[in-house]
Amino acid sequence: MHNIRLTIGYDGTAYHGFQTQPGGPTIQAALVKAIEEITGERAVVYGSGRTDAGVHARGQVVNFATASKLPPDRLCRALNARLPHDIVVWEAAEAPPDFHARKSAVRKTYCYTVNGNRYPDPAAQHTELHHPGPLDVAAMRKALQYLVGEHDFTSFCSAKAQTESKVRHLYEARLEHAPVPGMETAPGCGRLFFFYTGNGFLYNMVRIMTGTVLAVGEGRLDADDIPGILAGKDRTLAGPTAAAHGLTLWRVEYE
Amino acid sequence: MHNIRLTIGYDGTAYHGFQTQPGGPTIQAALVKAIEEITGERAVVYGSGRTDAGVHARGQVVNFATASKLPPDRLCRALNARLPHDIVVWEAAEAPPDFHARKSAVRKTYCYTVNGNRYPDPAAQHTELHHPGPLDVAAMRKALQYLVGEHDFTSFCSAKAQTESKVRHLYEARLEHAPVPGMETAPGCGRLFFFYTGNGFLYNMVRIMTGTVLAVGEGRLDADDIPGILAGKDRTLAGPTAAAHGLTLWRVEYE
Repeated sequence: MHNIRLTIGYDGTAYHGFQTQPGGPTIQAALVKAIEEITGERAVVYGSGRTDAGVHARGQVVNFATASKLPPDRLCRALNARLPHDIVVWEAAEAPPDFHARKSAVRKTYCYTVNGNRYPDPAAQHTELHHPGPLDVAAMRKALQYLVGEHDFTSFCSAKAQTESKVRHLYEARLEHAPVPGMETAPGCGRLFFFYTGNGFLYNMVRIMTGTVLAVGEGRLDADDIPGILAGKDRTLAGPTAAAHGLTLWRVEYE
Repeated sequence: MHNIRLTIGYDGTAYHGFQTQPGGPTIQAALVKAIEEITGERAVVYGSGRTDAGVHARGQVVNFATASKLPPDRLCRALNARLPHDIVVWEAAEAPPDFHARKSAVRKTYCYTVNGNRYPDPAAQHTELHHPGPLDVAAMRKALQYLVGEHDFTSFCSAKAQTESKVRHLYEARLEHAPVPGMETAPGCGRLFFFYTGNGFLYNMVRIMTGTVLAVGEGRLDADDIPGILAGKDRTLAGPTAAAHGLTLWRVEYE
């Protein structure tokens, strides 16, 4: 058997999340179907992690075992020919037998995109949060720095989550505030990109961190409130869960 | 009567272009309908220029006369509440009586976006041309410089065009090749942005210039061929017309 690793991207708008479940199309089901059409095998596809309904990905990694001898590069082209237009396989490669997309992951990065202009951008309605009004970028950057490090993120985790340990290490939390060169000359181009890199993320953690940092940006919370919110280990202390459609799983790293 | 100037943006994917015509939805028709719902008047809406089916806009400017006394800022909000989600009014203002969106325009800028990665980006399928394969950026920049200046652009104009003079002044033709900071860390983020600024553009001119410059980037044409193509005044000498969906009307400037 060959252990195939795929790096995939998707626009999650039309999907009920990554993981196969009853009631709607999923990224995983689309991959299983395309792999079956090519190899004749019904593979088990492991993802580096779930993404919620409406969440996007650029660097999602999955793996599956197959008896097919198709070279990875041809498999990649064959998959792209069969997958819907909103899912793309950037790369396919043969991985060592013990590679597992979720268990082998050591770092993940998410990007949350916020459009702070008064009116939404018609070209990016499904891939960014429209959040009009002034935001204090310096205060948000200060808030993000409090989140960096190893913490119990219970306050930044959906109360529904059943994970045993809520301790995670956030290596970096960065706010970029720059359009592509020349882009500032047209309306609606200003964007905020929140990049979070960590050893793992709890359920809704990126969306709750972003919702809380946006509350700091609006002045509804103070950046210096963050240590207390972390220490309180209580979801109700943090800000709201930012909408799914602004979130993109950016990159997954392995040893 | 008040002469109202709107700066608008749209995702042109679902439209048969800017200008009202039989057979499909247009931006102009959507604006006329929304204005009528608010003011009760069937206004004549002038655009700075047409955009073809599938072409987008960020800084399109339109104007119309109305007897309505609604302050422009309230009109702007009312229009956005009624327009479809893929059309947005960034700004509304009262203009002098002699302001005309097309006749008063002195400079226009278009942006053509090219994704040169091997596979398309699922998040931007409708707003950029997927054009895989290596492109020689230096050669394309050289080709663009030959286009700058006052020229007869007959070779870069649809043979269907019925304009009398094909002389236009291209002030700037610029190729940006930079992702947003941090963006280069995820797959599929590399982009080429071609910005063209001129006193006016012929039918399909930006798309033919871009198709020709891409042919230079691929090595099918030489940058030094451009002066001869211009001098030949023959559409068949230039490269192909690049697809509509990569094009965005970026900005329109007035005195």
